[in-house]
Amino acid sequence: MSNALRIDAPAGLPVVDMTREFDAPPSAVYRAHRDPELVTRWLGPDGYEMTVEVYDVRTGGRYRYSHHDPEGNVYRFNGVFHTAREGELIIQTFEYEAVPDVVAVETLRFEALEGGRTRLHTHSVHADVATRDAMISSGMERGVREGYARLDRVLAG
Amino acid sequence: MSNALRIDAPAGLPVVDMTREFDAPPSAVYRAHRDPELVTRWLGPDGYEMTVEVYDVRTGGRYRYSHHDPEGNVYRFNGVFHTAREGELIIQTFEYEAVPDVVAVETLRFEALEGGRTRLHTHSVHADVATRDAMISSGMERGVREGYARLDRVLAG
Repeated sequence: MSNALRIDAPAGLPVVDMTREFDAPPSAVYRAHRDPELVTRWLGPDGYEMTVEVYDVRTGGRYRYSHHDPEGNVYRFNGVFHTAREGELIIQTFEYEAVPDVVAVETLRFEALEGGRTRLHTHSVHADVATRDAMISSGMERGVREGYARLDRVLAG
Repeated sequence: MSNALRIDAPAGLPVVDMTREFDAPPSAVYRAHRDPELVTRWLGPDGYEMTVEVYDVRTGGRYRYSHHDPEGNVYRFNGVFHTAREGELIIQTFEYEAVPDVVAVETLRFEALEGGRTRLHTHSVHADVATRDAMISSGMERGVREGYARLDRVLAG
């Protein structure tokens, strides 16, 4: 499986690095991160529904959405876009509203590969190591893995 | 000197914590961070001039400004406000434009003390340890110390 998710969460640092390749060009992978009607089809774990209040991917824009799990629990997230550069780069803040005022920065780089493929690098920096560790033990990896598998299908469209 | 600046830059972490007390209530210290005409009177090292392109301190707002040193060099900075809560909290991103697309998050907490005083906590998380270390060796501490001394004078009116 050449498109496996790689996650690096170095011990003692508030950082998570992820890499995943996709069988689609950067413009398409970026669009699937930009257009809320596409984002809601893949972001989050399997079996969750996503509802978007605002999803305005541009420098200075913001987002707020909810994930609804099968038991009826709701998880809300919000942030602002520090940078959004079409097909290349998104730098955004990230707040899980159950832990208010604790904010991470996520940098997404869309790298063009040969054959019309993309390598997506995500560098997340959390407020502290404890917050990063809580994020990981909340099942983040499963959510990202399942979400990217659905993103594969969105891109295969 | 009870209002001394305390800086903690723990080894091996991309973090800087600063604490400084002011002889003015949180509402006044916050206002001096919010109103660009006040900010330009204190932010940055002595002898620098600050010019503001935009400084819109509200949730979802953004800022961009330049510092001009006595030799004519210009240093540009920008970011977005993830949260701005009057008299309490500012969470903002921070980018030094000479190092583009490398973004920190700064959390400023305005804590009310007895006697109408304020303790300001700043928690900065940089993209990585090398960036944090470069920030410190660029003379950050001097700039913050001199800036806060001018902020004392702004608050004294």
